[in-house]
Amino acid sequence: MNPQIDEHGQFRHLLTMQGLSADNIHSILDRAESFVSSPGSGPRTSAELKGRTIVNLFFEASTRTRSAFELAGKRLSADVLNMDVATSSTSKGETLLDTLKTLEAMDVDMFIVRHHASGAAQFIANQVRPGVAVLNAGDGRHAHPTQALLDVFTIRRHKPDFASLSVAIVGDILHSRVARSEIRALRALGVRDLRVIGPSTLLPSGLAELGAQPETDMDRGIEGADVIIMLRLQKERMSGHFLPSADEFYQRYGLTQSRLAGARADALVMHPGPINRGVEIESRVADGPQSVILQQVNHGVAVRMAIMSMILGQSGARR
Amino acid sequence: MNPQIDEHGQFRHLLTMQGLSADNIHSILDRAESFVSSPGSGPRTSAELKGRTIVNLFFEASTRTRSAFELAGKRLSADVLNMDVATSSTSKGETLLDTLKTLEAMDVDMFIVRHHASGAAQFIANQVRPGVAVLNAGDGRHAHPTQALLDVFTIRRHKPDFASLSVAIVGDILHSRVARSEIRALRALGVRDLRVIGPSTLLPSGLAELGAQPETDMDRGIEGADVIIMLRLQKERMSGHFLPSADEFYQRYGLTQSRLAGARADALVMHPGPINRGVEIESRVADGPQSVILQQVNHGVAVRMAIMSMILGQSGARR
Amino acid sequence: MNPQIDEHGQFRHLLTMQGLSADNIHSILDRAESFVSSPGSGPRTSAELKGRTIVNLFFEASTRTRSAFELAGKRLSADVLNMDVATSSTSKGETLLDTLKTLEAMDVDMFIVRHHASGAAQFIANQVRPGVAVLNAGDGRHAHPTQALLDVFTIRRHKPDFASLSVAIVGDILHSRVARSEIRALRALGVRDLRVIGPSTLLPSGLAELGAQPETDMDRGIEGADVIIMLRLQKERMSGHFLPSADEFYQRYGLTQSRLAGARADALVMHPGPINRGVEIESRVADGPQSVILQQVNHGVAVRMAIMSMILGQSGARR
Repeated sequence: MNPQIDEHGQFRHLLTMQGLSADNIHSILDRAESFVSSPGSGPRTSAELKGRTIVNLFFEASTRTRSAFELAGKRLSADVLNMDVATSSTSKGETLLDTLKTLEAMDVDMFIVRHHASGAAQFIANQVRPGVAVLNAGDGRHAHPTQALLDVFTIRRHKPDFASLSVAIVGDILHSRVARSEIRALRALGVRDLRVIGPSTLLPSGLAELGAQPETDMDRGIEGADVIIMLRLQKERMSGHFLPSADEFYQRYGLTQSRLAGARADALVMHPGPINRGVEIESRVADGPQSVILQQVNHGVAVRMAIMSMILGQSGARR
Repeated sequence: MNPQIDEHGQFRHLLTMQGLSADNIHSILDRAESFVSSPGSGPRTSAELKGRTIVNLFFEASTRTRSAFELAGKRLSADVLNMDVATSSTSKGETLLDTLKTLEAMDVDMFIVRHHASGAAQFIANQVRPGVAVLNAGDGRHAHPTQALLDVFTIRRHKPDFASLSVAIVGDILHSRVARSEIRALRALGVRDLRVIGPSTLLPSGLAELGAQPETDMDRGIEGADVIIMLRLQKERMSGHFLPSADEFYQRYGLTQSRLAGARADALVMHPGPINRGVEIESRVADGPQSVILQQVNHGVAVRMAIMSMILGQSGARR
Repeated sequence: MNPQIDEHGQFRHLLTMQGLSADNIHSILDRAESFVSSPGSGPRTSAELKGRTIVNLFFEASTRTRSAFELAGKRLSADVLNMDVATSSTSKGETLLDTLKTLEAMDVDMFIVRHHASGAAQFIANQVRPGVAVLNAGDGRHAHPTQALLDVFTIRRHKPDFASLSVAIVGDILHSRVARSEIRALRALGVRDLRVIGPSTLLPSGLAELGAQPETDMDRGIEGADVIIMLRLQKERMSGHFLPSADEFYQRYGLTQSRLAGARADALVMHPGPINRGVEIESRVADGPQSVILQQVNHGVAVRMAIMSMILGQSGARR
């Protein structure tokens, strides 16, 4: 049984893409459609979560992801509390569990959790009382499910026939929770041709078991691809044994205009952001007509509103 | 005359427990009852303070207490502004009074003040214009009235006959604003057997005048007690002349399961948090069936909503 | 054409006072009148911007100005997001433009921008898509238009006949975006006798072209003035080549009670805050009957609500 979903098929948490079916995923994406704004019409809002309390519990700093969750919650009329545990003196030596239980006792309905330890969101979901929801906003190298959902949502809006797609994910796969969640989501939705590209030092073992095909040559990897997802390269991993230099990475794996020509002419260019221009991606590709990077950001709010609404809203499971 | 209460018996500020009658205290606790959530029903909210502005003016960092006040204000539909003066460059050398007057000029209705100096909340209450309220969220070693209120609220829900109770407060009484406010609240509510327990270096003089009985022996102090309130030990006072070590403190005053057996079988175990496990309290006592520590946290929001509502709400004194 | 105002005379941005007519300015001030609170009646609020998103994008720390904008937005029922880029790890090396475009993609309706670089607000306004508004909350030494508006609003409420006024601005004109915006606003409103006073090292060239008369002697400068605007002296400029010491500045330019006697008996004393008591201004002048410093703060919220409402509200240009 999937601990994220109750016996009636309702979401209780969102912790990982593992175990989610195509139907589960499409149900979130369908709901997200209703939260996408029309150009120039201002953000979509609703009173659905009025009186509910959502806490952004961030043990790693991330203004960008936190803002997307904060806006999603506020636009559903929830009360949103930001707890920046990374930088605050919050805990005063308190254990993670005591911090959590203390907040829970204040009648929090949902925790958005980012933590540097893989498994933290699942651990927290195991500890909260029934009716309290946990959304994983990134845990260690493990999972970042809302990022994967906004990615497949963006792909579906352009190229809905997942079974026919060739998708390439490029970069530091080894350290990437984003890549892990994307691979699971894309495979669940039926993608058969899924290529995972990077230097061998940054390709973890076990990719074949997940249904992804490892590849160290960029040009071969993106040949004929319908979708290219570039990952952010963490600069702190540049020096050391993983990579010789940012320059060399760009030479071998950077998505330039000329390299992009090897993919399909209508290939989508994606990136979870923040982008390192000239490291993973050439500026004119990032800003070019095939880039859907800013659409991803826009869809990120819609997807988060969707899952919040499905878990805490009127039509979600009652508590 | 009590500056916290106007001539019609309405609260104008909440600065200290000193001078509050049993009726004054019960009126807040009665109101708080309406803000306690039922298990699994989500937080209680109201539109009572819609359009009102509450500023959390914190000169000492405290994410925990600030969060409780922030949630209390938001759940009453007030606009809440967080001013973390401890860490911000807010003042740029501005005096406390200029910071206060500037915020007041922005039509702030209520200041929640935490400050390291004893008397700061009273000082600020003396300076604000009529109709502007001040709630003391802890000032130096002086007072922490909302903590005392949530404590007596928690006790009242379990053991309402204060006159018959034996209550023990344990730990660093000398530096504790929590203890000072608790002693006043418990005495006002009629507690006759009030024991204050700690090493002699941490027991201030004048306890007898307040109606509390000092005691240096833990086992004798908690014998037959109905309620045991453990205080947080500030680690920075561990080394130095007050205490030899955390270990020795735990040996002499830590609330262990075996020691707890000396109190009444239904004795309540309380702590204002955050707890230091293995310093003041054994984990299985903190998490055990007699512990009401998380209820205290829950009641902390309800009590703060109550006093905000009584001062700023429709039924409060008009301005 | 003024990029701040569209072809129908509607405000799209507020970036600078340059190019604004007396009619443009009075239209904002007229709207601001409806947002000034009556004494003791609590803040004015409205549901006008419900569902709109306003982001405080501050690249320089400023709790005071940020709070005024935050309250203005919240009192109009907008969702307000604070992005403190100065202190956060927001950008992770991201370019200003990428940070901006990312937030814009989250369907932000308005950016409030403070930046240390002159021209930053204009740069950002050039980059946002149609329908997204930018308010300049201070850019380098260039402009601080909402400060100038709240100043002239305060003057107009006391002395509405601008053409007959003698106004003196005193202090570090060279580094002051406040002074630049005030000079433009006062001139646009018809002030003919505008004196700009400070040591010659702090008086920029080109003042005469702006219609202001430079003056190095304080007593001569404020003689017969109807309005005296003291600027904040940045302490970091005290030592160095601009000024010998704070003491000497106060001796020559500090606004003392005896010096104030040289102005008109009903002269208004103004200061953008935070004030340095005993550096720019004597305490009894700052707190005296002629001081309107706290009125300025109060009006600052009203003026910001006015411009937000004019740009994003129902009666503003539709998008």
